[in-house]
Amino acid sequence: MLLKEIEAFLEEDVGHEDYEEIVPEAECKAEIEVKEGGVLAGLDEVKQIFNYLGVLCATEFEDGAQIKEGDVILRVQGAGMKILKAERLVLNFLGRMSGIATLTDRFVKEARRANARIRVAGTRKTTPGFRKYEKKAIAIGGGDPHRFGLYEAVIIKDNYIKLMGLENAIKKAKEKVSFTRKIEVEVESIEDALKAAELDVDIIMFDNMSAKDVKAGVQLLEEHGFHTRTGTGLILEASGEINLSNVSEFAATGVDVLSSGMLTYGAKWLGFSLDVV
Amino acid sequence: MLLKEIEAFLEEDVGHEDYEEIVPEAECKAEIEVKEGGVLAGLDEVKQIFNYLGVLCATEFEDGAQIKEGDVILRVQGAGMKILKAERLVLNFLGRMSGIATLTDRFVKEARRANARIRVAGTRKTTPGFRKYEKKAIAIGGGDPHRFGLYEAVIIKDNYIKLMGLENAIKKAKEKVSFTRKIEVEVESIEDALKAAELDVDIIMFDNMSAKDVKAGVQLLEEHGFHTRTGTGLILEASGEINLSNVSEFAATGVDVLSSGMLTYGAKWLGFSLDVV
Amino acid sequence: MLLKEIEAFLEEDVGHEDYEEIVPEAECKAEIEVKEGGVLAGLDEVKQIFNYLGVLCATEFEDGAQIKEGDVILRVQGAGMKILKAERLVLNFLGRMSGIATLTDRFVKEARRANARIRVAGTRKTTPGFRKYEKKAIAIGGGDPHRFGLYEAVIIKDNYIKLMGLENAIKKAKEKVSFTRKIEVEVESIEDALKAAELDVDIIMFDNMSAKDVKAGVQLLEEHGFHTRTGTGLILEASGEINLSNVSEFAATGVDVLSSGMLTYGAKWLGFSLDVV
Amino acid sequence: MLLKEIEAFLEEDVGHEDYEEIVPEAECKAEIEVKEGGVLAGLDEVKQIFNYLGVLCATEFEDGAQIKEGDVILRVQGAGMKILKAERLVLNFLGRMSGIATLTDRFVKEARRANARIRVAGTRKTTPGFRKYEKKAIAIGGGDPHRFGLYEAVIIKDNYIKLMGLENAIKKAKEKVSFTRKIEVEVESIEDALKAAELDVDIIMFDNMSAKDVKAGVQLLEEHGFHTRTGTGLILEASGEINLSNVSEFAATGVDVLSSGMLTYGAKWLGFSLDVV
Amino acid sequence: MLLKEIEAFLEEDVGHEDYEEIVPEAECKAEIEVKEGGVLAGLDEVKQIFNYLGVLCATEFEDGAQIKEGDVILRVQGAGMKILKAERLVLNFLGRMSGIATLTDRFVKEARRANARIRVAGTRKTTPGFRKYEKKAIAIGGGDPHRFGLYEAVIIKDNYIKLMGLENAIKKAKEKVSFTRKIEVEVESIEDALKAAELDVDIIMFDNMSAKDVKAGVQLLEEHGFHTRTGTGLILEASGEINLSNVSEFAATGVDVLSSGMLTYGAKWLGFSLDVV
Amino acid sequence: MLLKEIEAFLEEDVGHEDYEEIVPEAECKAEIEVKEGGVLAGLDEVKQIFNYLGVLCATEFEDGAQIKEGDVILRVQGAGMKILKAERLVLNFLGRMSGIATLTDRFVKEARRANARIRVAGTRKTTPGFRKYEKKAIAIGGGDPHRFGLYEAVIIKDNYIKLMGLENAIKKAKEKVSFTRKIEVEVESIEDALKAAELDVDIIMFDNMSAKDVKAGVQLLEEHGFHTRTGTGLILEASGEINLSNVSEFAATGVDVLSSGMLTYGAKWLGFSLDVV
Repeated sequence: MLLKEIEAFLEEDVGHEDYEEIVPEAECKAEIEVKEGGVLAGLDEVKQIFNYLGVLCATEFEDGAQIKEGDVILRVQGAGMKILKAERLVLNFLGRMSGIATLTDRFVKEARRANARIRVAGTRKTTPGFRKYEKKAIAIGGGDPHRFGLYEAVIIKDNYIKLMGLENAIKKAKEKVSFTRKIEVEVESIEDALKAAELDVDIIMFDNMSAKDVKAGVQLLEEHGFHTRTGTGLILEASGEINLSNVSEFAATGVDVLSSGMLTYGAKWLGFSLDVV
Repeated sequence: MLLKEIEAFLEEDVGHEDYEEIVPEAECKAEIEVKEGGVLAGLDEVKQIFNYLGVLCATEFEDGAQIKEGDVILRVQGAGMKILKAERLVLNFLGRMSGIATLTDRFVKEARRANARIRVAGTRKTTPGFRKYEKKAIAIGGGDPHRFGLYEAVIIKDNYIKLMGLENAIKKAKEKVSFTRKIEVEVESIEDALKAAELDVDIIMFDNMSAKDVKAGVQLLEEHGFHTRTGTGLILEASGEINLSNVSEFAATGVDVLSSGMLTYGAKWLGFSLDVV
Repeated sequence: MLLKEIEAFLEEDVGHEDYEEIVPEAECKAEIEVKEGGVLAGLDEVKQIFNYLGVLCATEFEDGAQIKEGDVILRVQGAGMKILKAERLVLNFLGRMSGIATLTDRFVKEARRANARIRVAGTRKTTPGFRKYEKKAIAIGGGDPHRFGLYEAVIIKDNYIKLMGLENAIKKAKEKVSFTRKIEVEVESIEDALKAAELDVDIIMFDNMSAKDVKAGVQLLEEHGFHTRTGTGLILEASGEINLSNVSEFAATGVDVLSSGMLTYGAKWLGFSLDVV
Repeated sequence: MLLKEIEAFLEEDVGHEDYEEIVPEAECKAEIEVKEGGVLAGLDEVKQIFNYLGVLCATEFEDGAQIKEGDVILRVQGAGMKILKAERLVLNFLGRMSGIATLTDRFVKEARRANARIRVAGTRKTTPGFRKYEKKAIAIGGGDPHRFGLYEAVIIKDNYIKLMGLENAIKKAKEKVSFTRKIEVEVESIEDALKAAELDVDIIMFDNMSAKDVKAGVQLLEEHGFHTRTGTGLILEASGEINLSNVSEFAATGVDVLSSGMLTYGAKWLGFSLDVV
Repeated sequence: MLLKEIEAFLEEDVGHEDYEEIVPEAECKAEIEVKEGGVLAGLDEVKQIFNYLGVLCATEFEDGAQIKEGDVILRVQGAGMKILKAERLVLNFLGRMSGIATLTDRFVKEARRANARIRVAGTRKTTPGFRKYEKKAIAIGGGDPHRFGLYEAVIIKDNYIKLMGLENAIKKAKEKVSFTRKIEVEVESIEDALKAAELDVDIIMFDNMSAKDVKAGVQLLEEHGFHTRTGTGLILEASGEINLSNVSEFAATGVDVLSSGMLTYGAKWLGFSLDVV
Repeated sequence: MLLKEIEAFLEEDVGHEDYEEIVPEAECKAEIEVKEGGVLAGLDEVKQIFNYLGVLCATEFEDGAQIKEGDVILRVQGAGMKILKAERLVLNFLGRMSGIATLTDRFVKEARRANARIRVAGTRKTTPGFRKYEKKAIAIGGGDPHRFGLYEAVIIKDNYIKLMGLENAIKKAKEKVSFTRKIEVEVESIEDALKAAELDVDIIMFDNMSAKDVKAGVQLLEEHGFHTRTGTGLILEASGEINLSNVSEFAATGVDVLSSGMLTYGAKWLGFSLDVV
């Protein structure tokens, strides 16, 4: 976290509160306790926030740890005023980030039951201004954050194809975009998948297709030698309405990656509480 | 929205993308369609984002409208490059804000079945950096945003009471805090509620108590003349584990306000899509 | 103070000065001396500024202390270059904030001679960008900072009433504004005061009325049971042309609060000097 | 004004107010009226703020105009909500800036009665973060803003001399500082003035000396050929406790410039009101 | 360009200049003329800067155009004060960006004489804070901007290999980094190139090797089937001391990309002047 | 450097890289080595950047030192991840700043062979956003940074004269601009130089004139008593196409200052490398 981020987040919650402060500056201790099990994320940020405020932290946990109800993931010591000032912000970080990490972990485990090599990836369906932390929580939960923004891998989506045509869009991307960026194409049919593969892209995403169709697509591309089960060559991704119930079915199709916006927009917060002791 | 917010949100998604732009500047049209019914929120922000980019907007909808699958809530016209640049950001605003407004609307309707005057309020359990929009979505959904941050109404919570004692904390707040700010106390027992009322606070919150206990608390305070069913005098609020299943039960207790972090942290996004036409 | 505030304030005065630095880095000592008596404010900020620059501070004073000519309120030690870089900024903080605290203290003392319970409050008539520190100085001087900005207590002012009507404005505020915010109405007649009280607002401000009329207003509201001398129920405030000469007369009217823009816009700076020793 | 400044100033006063807005968006008209005579300043900024909010402005006045009670210096038209949102901020700009311009104008007139060529200048004793506008108000009032910050003209002050010695400080400045910047020395005796003049500086300031001593200093320097009454060569400045009562006496000493922190820290606000019509 | 960038760049050059403005506001016309031939870049930014200031622009040129001495690339009309305020900033943009585009163009042409398919790419050796514009100028000059920062393609450089070993670093990258990002390895020998290719990376860079050795490396990889002359499969890049004299020799080695920090750090500015007409 | 600058520069290069970090946090050592001789600049900034990241620095060098190939100018120790994160940024600072300091040093030495008292100054032809560091590098190289921006010394350039006339522009500057700022005029003929001198300005710049004409101009002004060889009185500057080949010829003309945009826009970077040891 940058100092300017810590200050902006604190300012949102605390504002000009200083001159009407009622909590004493006297030192106290507090601890953060887990209220429901899951995967811990956000601890790193919480320590940086307390550190900024001059509050000492001690912990035996690390981001990514499996946590259960009752675990004390952090003990802090410092001015009562400072600890209470940070309380809501740090709980919001933990709740949101651990919620995403926990859901990601479940997706990954469920998907890997059907395909041990598969990656589960997020999307750009994130809360405006908070993407960095939501993507990081996916990574902590064992997922793949996927591209951060438009400026990373080029993804040629349906609207691009409507505006420019599939072939032209790929050609344009190869011309205009640095060789250091991958080119991905979203297709909605097996035929388009083959066409895109022949145009030599890096990644093909089967978008909003049934698991059965995705499987047919994977086979077609393998028959044409564009994809192998060991993961070399063209990367195949499926996306669209993937959830915990159908994730293993999609994983079984043979694609390399499943991506789902649910990891971020569908994640419930994990409960934590901060208690003065 | 401030210009600096629009720029920061766009920058997060678009970055330095300009020099590798593949979408043509040629003008096109697109529309945003609803994929599942609910309450619309975020439209105002979306229009401002498109406006910043020089894209024209037309709509017959307003924030707060009940929307159903298939509704076209916005038609835009402008450079293809600009529209696709805004696509993900505007959908994220609509999805997140409408999700909160929709859930709030359901909470309010459910609660008002039992108590026509009741308010349903949010909390500070919001995504860091995005509180302004999440609170606004609650308001659009018919809820009460509750205090924005620590610098508005003073809320004396359990940790404050542990550090300072109930009586002392109220006294401190009255001394140090402007008369323009309300003082609220969180209590976990009927006895503390009565004590706080006698110390002349503005709002009492029954925190993490059963609906039965809350009801007893309301009655006790009414018997002592601190509260009336017409809403004058002391305001009573209940909070803690309130959800769609039990909200009407809590509403029936006679409190004035029910607050629930679920409105923000438990809201599923509403689906929207932007399609070039 | 946030780091970004310290940097912005320093940058205003120091700019790109570094590469033409003439003061040696060698360590020296300096002290800040009071040039005229009053109430100290801004010391906290001054220590944070020196701390940012790596200059050590020692003091026996605290904000709010009564200070007299010749008092040395701070001794510092560090690189000569750093101390001289901070000199003007820290003196400006002390001069402006102590000036406000000193004037507030005089207002409070004068008002309490007539009414021991009265509060003296500021307004939003502050220097753009510096409100946080001016409001804090009022608090340090024993005053009430009043609401910080439009987003705190709602105040229905004359222009609001012209646009919406008194009754409608109050109704609108009750509907649209969170129950956590107080509602205040500015009235210019006794009749309007009574009307507003009957509409159940939290605070009534007698605006630009004579002390005699204010007194009549207080009595009327007390006769109707809306206000008590012990300060429960509706809060009464008077404002408009209140100064040191008439503040005790207004205090004697029985209102709970007197507010005056003079605390900020009429405050003379208090003199301080920083001398290398 | 930069857009980022307008947004920061508005945000200080308005914050997240949007979602609890009670003022209707319907168009209305309002005017800003002068409550006490003086010199107008800040009008330029006010127009830019209204312009940012989409409110139309019409005026026959310009910054620097002599205004009297009752003058309507600006008529605006736009959404009621926007006008009331800007109200306090624009009045604060006008009050503070016109107050400074008005006081400066009085200083200048008073000084020029004794010396028609004299300049009256400000200092760096300004409100942190608002210097740009306070210096501009001095210029509007007919004064000289003096250097903006440490990075403009080098001024060798008492603390510099204590640390480095007069001669060494001047030598250092000549070596390290660009030839495009002037070098000024503050002296507290006639002897030091002569010494500094012999070391070939651009400006000498008589600091905290009596008018009589300043006059003697000017004569000494004129006798040595360092200064002429027509203003060529070395510039002479006097500073320290100069106020409206003694400004003409100091002006008569023959210096070229009188500088006084009072122009900013001692200026009373000028009264303005904004009324919906 | 974001508004905040335009304001920051202008502020650097213009500062608080407003209140000491000597140029009249009266409208005038000016034109920007080319003083030496090359490739135009920065025109887009210049138009945005003038647009921000309310100055009208007319041009028949576009970024990327070949320009020659005497060409008038832009005619502007607006307040004299505004045009002169922008003068230096817009010339700096044009000079720096066109200088890079011009040099890149020469590199590309020289390299393509030997290898018609080759790409010439930049590096991260850019001026801190100005990378976006320097990379864009490379693209305008026909080059490949290469990755923008560490967060795009992963490049395993010598220091990474020293710390982690080649094999381990690649393994780590494959585990930790999103599948949407390419993995590149810098090697300093043919043997390492083969090893990296066998570990299935996306790009191999021959770093600081002679053209002869690079050629041998390309052949070795082609013999092992990792690379084809038609540009599918593994991408090969050479870097290190490539300049205009040796670029065609390196191009002839058969690599796909040549990258050189000289495009940015070695580019001379192109001359432009702005003249009031 | 301000913290906000360090964060902005790092963010440009590192972005959201954290969650895909492959470099271990384990401590390591590295050193920065000089690859070609010159004058060191930027070391101060590099130490601040490492310091921000918690990396320890040790050095026996200072900015301004003459360095030669193979010199180790800095040894650092800290988390491998942090050192590699800073690598490119610190090398960019050193390369750019030392390149400017080295070129300046050569200009100064060359010029002083002909005129031991002469100053060599930069211009405002700097990279947007990076001027502070480029001007500082000039100072470190023994040059004069010249005015930083429009808000320092007033320079009346050709466009000003076209718009306002020479005499009027000088008059306007004397009226509107603080006495603390110098007034410089750019002239393109001997006659205008004399005219400007008679109007009593501080600096005259011979712009784009031959060395011969400049020499004649200096003599003319000396004959009229406006300039002396010992550097008192009017300062004379020459500018326009001054480079290493002709700088001594211009220095011999007798002017006080030579300014050249080449110091910044024509400087080649100096080579440095950072190696893990």
